[in-house]
Amino acid sequence: MNATDTPAHPPLSDDLLRRMDAWWRAANYVSVGQIYLLANPLLREPLQLAHVKPRLLGHWGTTPGLNFLYTHLNRVISERDLDVLFLAGPGHGGPAVVANTWLEGTYSETWPNVPLDAEGMAALFKQFSFPGGIPSHVAPQTPGSIHEGGELGYALSHAYGAVFDNPDLIVACVVGDGEAETGPLATAWHSNKFLNPATDGAVLPILHLNGYKIAGPTVLARIGDDELASLMKGYGHEPIFVEAEEPDVAHRLMATAFDTAFDEIARIQKAARELADENGALPPGYPRPRWPMIVMRTPKGWTGPKTVDGQKTEGSWRSHQVPLANIAKPGHLAQLESWMRSYKPEELFDAQGRLVPDIASLAPKGEKRMSANPRSNGGGRVRELRVPPFEHHAVDVPAPGQVEAEATRVMGAFLREVMRVNDPTRNFRIFGPDETASNRWSDVFDVTSRTWLAGRTPDDFQLATNGRVMEILSEHTCQGWLEGYLLTGRHGFMSCYEAFIHIIDSMFNQHAKWLKVIREIPWRRPLPSLNYLLTSHVWRQDHNGFSHQDPGFIDYAVNKKSDTVRVYLPPDANTLLAVTDHVLRTWNRINIIVAGKQPQAQWLDMDAAIRHCADGIGIWQWASNDDGGEPDVVMACAGDVPTMETLAAVDLLRTCLPDLKIRVVNVVDLMTLEPADRHPHGLPDADFNALFTTDKPVIFAHHSYPSLIHRLTYRRANHTNIHVHGFIEEGTTTTPFDMTVLNRLDRYHLCEAVIDRVDGLAQRAAHLRQTLHDKLAAHRRYVDEYGDDMPEIRDWRWPAPRSAEGGSETS
Amino acid sequence: MNATDTPAHPPLSDDLLRRMDAWWRAANYVSVGQIYLLANPLLREPLQLAHVKPRLLGHWGTTPGLNFLYTHLNRVISERDLDVLFLAGPGHGGPAVVANTWLEGTYSETWPNVPLDAEGMAALFKQFSFPGGIPSHVAPQTPGSIHEGGELGYALSHAYGAVFDNPDLIVACVVGDGEAETGPLATAWHSNKFLNPATDGAVLPILHLNGYKIAGPTVLARIGDDELASLMKGYGHEPIFVEAEEPDVAHRLMATAFDTAFDEIARIQKAARELADENGALPPGYPRPRWPMIVMRTPKGWTGPKTVDGQKTEGSWRSHQVPLANIAKPGHLAQLESWMRSYKPEELFDAQGRLVPDIASLAPKGEKRMSANPRSNGGGRVRELRVPPFEHHAVDVPAPGQVEAEATRVMGAFLREVMRVNDPTRNFRIFGPDETASNRWSDVFDVTSRTWLAGRTPDDFQLATNGRVMEILSEHTCQGWLEGYLLTGRHGFMSCYEAFIHIIDSMFNQHAKWLKVIREIPWRRPLPSLNYLLTSHVWRQDHNGFSHQDPGFIDYAVNKKSDTVRVYLPPDANTLLAVTDHVLRTWNRINIIVAGKQPQAQWLDMDAAIRHCADGIGIWQWASNDDGGEPDVVMACAGDVPTMETLAAVDLLRTCLPDLKIRVVNVVDLMTLEPADRHPHGLPDADFNALFTTDKPVIFAHHSYPSLIHRLTYRRANHTNIHVHGFIEEGTTTTPFDMTVLNRLDRYHLCEAVIDRVDGLAQRAAHLRQTLHDKLAAHRRYVDEYGDDMPEIRDWRWPAPRSAEGGSETS
Repeated sequence: MNATDTPAHPPLSDDLLRRMDAWWRAANYVSVGQIYLLANPLLREPLQLAHVKPRLLGHWGTTPGLNFLYTHLNRVISERDLDVLFLAGPGHGGPAVVANTWLEGTYSETWPNVPLDAEGMAALFKQFSFPGGIPSHVAPQTPGSIHEGGELGYALSHAYGAVFDNPDLIVACVVGDGEAETGPLATAWHSNKFLNPATDGAVLPILHLNGYKIAGPTVLARIGDDELASLMKGYGHEPIFVEAEEPDVAHRLMATAFDTAFDEIARIQKAARELADENGALPPGYPRPRWPMIVMRTPKGWTGPKTVDGQKTEGSWRSHQVPLANIAKPGHLAQLESWMRSYKPEELFDAQGRLVPDIASLAPKGEKRMSANPRSNGGGRVRELRVPPFEHHAVDVPAPGQVEAEATRVMGAFLREVMRVNDPTRNFRIFGPDETASNRWSDVFDVTSRTWLAGRTPDDFQLATNGRVMEILSEHTCQGWLEGYLLTGRHGFMSCYEAFIHIIDSMFNQHAKWLKVIREIPWRRPLPSLNYLLTSHVWRQDHNGFSHQDPGFIDYAVNKKSDTVRVYLPPDANTLLAVTDHVLRTWNRINIIVAGKQPQAQWLDMDAAIRHCADGIGIWQWASNDDGGEPDVVMACAGDVPTMETLAAVDLLRTCLPDLKIRVVNVVDLMTLEPADRHPHGLPDADFNALFTTDKPVIFAHHSYPSLIHRLTYRRANHTNIHVHGFIEEGTTTTPFDMTVLNRLDRYHLCEAVIDRVDGLAQRAAHLRQTLHDKLAAHRRYVDEYGDDMPEIRDWRWPAPRSAEGGSETS
Repeated sequence: MNATDTPAHPPLSDDLLRRMDAWWRAANYVSVGQIYLLANPLLREPLQLAHVKPRLLGHWGTTPGLNFLYTHLNRVISERDLDVLFLAGPGHGGPAVVANTWLEGTYSETWPNVPLDAEGMAALFKQFSFPGGIPSHVAPQTPGSIHEGGELGYALSHAYGAVFDNPDLIVACVVGDGEAETGPLATAWHSNKFLNPATDGAVLPILHLNGYKIAGPTVLARIGDDELASLMKGYGHEPIFVEAEEPDVAHRLMATAFDTAFDEIARIQKAARELADENGALPPGYPRPRWPMIVMRTPKGWTGPKTVDGQKTEGSWRSHQVPLANIAKPGHLAQLESWMRSYKPEELFDAQGRLVPDIASLAPKGEKRMSANPRSNGGGRVRELRVPPFEHHAVDVPAPGQVEAEATRVMGAFLREVMRVNDPTRNFRIFGPDETASNRWSDVFDVTSRTWLAGRTPDDFQLATNGRVMEILSEHTCQGWLEGYLLTGRHGFMSCYEAFIHIIDSMFNQHAKWLKVIREIPWRRPLPSLNYLLTSHVWRQDHNGFSHQDPGFIDYAVNKKSDTVRVYLPPDANTLLAVTDHVLRTWNRINIIVAGKQPQAQWLDMDAAIRHCADGIGIWQWASNDDGGEPDVVMACAGDVPTMETLAAVDLLRTCLPDLKIRVVNVVDLMTLEPADRHPHGLPDADFNALFTTDKPVIFAHHSYPSLIHRLTYRRANHTNIHVHGFIEEGTTTTPFDMTVLNRLDRYHLCEAVIDRVDGLAQRAAHLRQTLHDKLAAHRRYVDEYGDDMPEIRDWRWPAPRSAEGGSETS
């Protein structure tokens, strides 16, 4: 136990400790019951095999430790009137969190089919890990949870995300020593350099060393207290060690540790809040606080069977799941019964199966219960995002293709205004791995800065203790922070290099699953959408190379439930603005926007962009010459670079083959391509056929892998005629145009595809085909010599509007 | 500088320091030249705009620091005759590593078009970040590299993977302070708990604090030396600080630091090797060494322009990429010239453009050059994997479907033998996040243990200082270690829960890219394949729930180049054995095997399994009754659970509708479904059509998302008749059979699909359809009541072989 300057609290009374121990025993009892029992919940009759579930599922190992912490946190909350969330990193300990939420009444309030009595206890036990019941982990079904306990690594980043801009909130975040080995968790400790004690809440990390994972020991349990203390100090924390096995000793140590930790949190916050200005900025030289954290070393499967079949079980990895797994084995049923009776249920529950009042009164009241904290359910008070008019930021586009703009820079100006108008409610933040400026969102720095509580130098700029731009070179941490922020009802946007968003593939997965499940839970409120801008995309990696070229995140994302995922590929700045405005107003979605940051031709004025984005897909009549009739070929495009190459190809084709009837279709909302019965944005077949015809060749230039278009359209009538050009995994550091050539997405290859696919064109266009070959050869020579694209390519502009009849010079 | 017990080396002579400084200047000069110059490489004439590249690409910021370290490492190598690899975590510093490899001659040996003279220097400069040239990062094209410098986070885990079982190798691993913020890097520091100083080599981590990322400061540069030292001690290291700006001071500090560090490495290794037994095991109580590491704090863009346009550049994030980016700006060309001339090229290079002998002689000789270390190119001496006969482990399958086995347990016994026969050469390891036992590979513990150098308790088992099973609860670290092990020419296998392999999606990406590129480089040797077993798969998450249910890694993986990726879905133990044997013999591949670990019906005896796996796909005649003729329906299946459900459906159909001609096709090698011109394993259309017909309905039960089958088959003649049942993102903790019902992959839904799709069957099978509905309803009731599958489902077995005429009782 480390000393602090704070005067020690008086020791807890024996009576209070006795009652807390009773609560802990009740929680342990209810936990074991969930894992084992189908009937006879209060053991009012001798335990029989028929009372035990046929399939025993669950994780006991971490459960008693979680119950212990929950019990002790309840004391602190009640005594100090605190606003606390419990975040169970070892979410395998579902039985523990469910048990406590039931004991404190919240479970029955959210799930009336599980009342707070013997019948409810029976229902609670049966439903656990039972078909049609609840999962074995802490899950969306668990009241008070913002954190699925399946995949490990994100407990701390979720906890920090939750307390940003929630100055009154403290998240008690339990980190298992298994989870502590993951990379995302290992770096998330540094989140304390991004926490403002004046305007944010606090996270109290509790590293629970129970010593074992599924089958082996954990690293942090085996490096010794000295090295572990160094590690925690190196992470910027002041550790408080609690190591105990005997419950009475453990209770006293933990109570003192919590008093010390919560005193210290209060001291840090009070000092900072006195120093901060009215905007929450801390004075220069303000020393970053060393926040307390707790190391709790208790046996795995604490209070469970000491041995099973002669093998050490309590304090061993053998407690990880179900310690007595084969209950039919001689002696095991009796051992289970004596284990459960060791908690003395007859002292804990009255005749109706209710916790006796003396113990039940330990729970905090109303929304002070961690399981009833409204922040765990999309936020307490509503903090709707205010969305200012995006049209103010429109790029002036007098005619298609005549001006250039950097789309994401325009978006950045809009986000600056979003940031500005929401500043009073502090409910919007931007996240990204050190790429806000690189991704051209720098206008946001007009109104805010990067959050930074670590050391400063005189040369620093755009850093502030109260900044609202969250940058750390850890996609995992950015994503985790943002998820925690959204799960507590606030709003945000993340920007990322397109290739590296795959780093959080698995986190995306889990968040998509969370969103799917909360829609099925009546008491869960909708959540603000998770919004991504993916930029520095595959086609413009001028500074980098093959390692930075991967457009596959959207291919990956569409496997998730269609009511969750949206994919937008705005071709220019005004469409990007309209899409951004839209996604900021959505709930319960994951919106993925892919857009380039380089100067690029602009196609639509604001009104046209709004209409186009509302439809999600449409014919660009100004680029087409099918004149409303049947075209010879449909040139479809999705994504900014594919759109430019398509229009350059159309320009060339209309110049050289003016009789060829071309229809240009641009796709902003990729999910329009899916059948209407598969995705809410999917076009009905008739509309799809009206755009793509049922029998004409479609040359489709697409941003990511070609297979994505095929898989979205394979049920459409014309799908065999859809020929997709996209990324075929060819890349290196090269010029923008050369990247398209390597992947056959360039204007010349698109023209060639038209010649190949339109009936009867091969003969008529023999000359053009030769021209295309010559142009490609000239490109190759030029780029090899000068390392840049030919001026004729770089400087190509879409011609002024011309009549649908064509009329340009022929080749 | 921390004191050590080792006596200090005599200070370096002034002359040696002068020559080392000259090498450093030469490397810096050649680095700047790569970023800027198209011509006039030696500045023999005044610099003109025409000499400068039109597109300036590259990353200067980290480059001088890398050059500095490379220079100093060369001294240590030469003086101590060491075997060292240079691993540049800040791989953006491509110019640095390329410069040094050219200066020491290796570059010209591997790339004869870039000789070691003025002409070669011109070629070297031009090709950098130039189309048709080399990427801007350290890349496969860079001699001596095992580490692509694009995505950040994996430097340390790669370094450790390289030194495992390479006792003479030291990897000098530079970790950038940007990369240090990533999760994977943050946990990889703990790799030292898995390194055996007797039988493994050593990693010398060098944390390079240049203070800035793209646009902001780095966390570790701003927490102060005390906290940083605590962090490194907490990670188990003894840090040595080197902080300098003035080159002369820096040289002296770094030389002393390296002497201290390499002395300490030698001392640790010597002590351990004296203590270890002949198998490399260290005695009980052997204290884990505190390995040295170096913290180097030098300015970003060191020796570059102090200011550009009045803004601080050296020592600032403004040095990150190209400090003088717009060379046409007044004064910038002159500033570039004076910057380059500040390195005094005229003192460094002779008239032919060769490094003067006095400096050139600093390079180590031959394979001692870090860039020529054979371990960086698939290993020095060949360490072929010995693969013992797998047939010995065959499960006895007297008839299909009569016996059960746990497929991965059988595989584990085979891997035990692989481990055993390769023990003498120490070239095979197994990797996984604490799941070796859970995934049923426990037989390997008969011959080896988990590697563990951290603390021990008396209850520990299956831990050893010389174990060959690498477990840490970090998929990133496991993957990084394995990659490092493979990249240096050794062999391995990784097992992982299927859902959580997505955690390393992005690492998979980068490794696939590395494999693609090395195939295009004549001097790169092939690498042992990266082999995955994905188990605890989506269909059998009995202990967990929705968070653990994601089969999408294979969907994700097939986007990579077809010559790299293989996907195998063996339906039972014997096919799993045959596939395992095959993948262990392959090179330059990523082999993904998905197989369940639960007891499951076995279908093929060993001979049949070998034939089936050799074909990759085939008709299971014993399950079919089409008698070699045209079937009414093809029942296709891929994956163990889909295969079982398909056969159960076939059983029911053949019982109830004996006239229905059913063909059963099983797919082991998923890539057979792709067209032959798309994938080397793809079936020719004729063969595909012979299996799947061109017009009959195909009911395809598939392991992962249905879209994967559609995308692989959309070019096949019969693709519109292929109806795929797979995972549709419905899951929870439930029974095995109920999981298939939730996703409509179960036997009853498959039967219903047959009734729906076979012409004219709907009428004839009205009774069966009712039966199916009744069975599903009965299942629902039973599972909701008892939480387990109905005995009729659990106990279903494929009947004994029967004649193709059917003849069972009709319904």
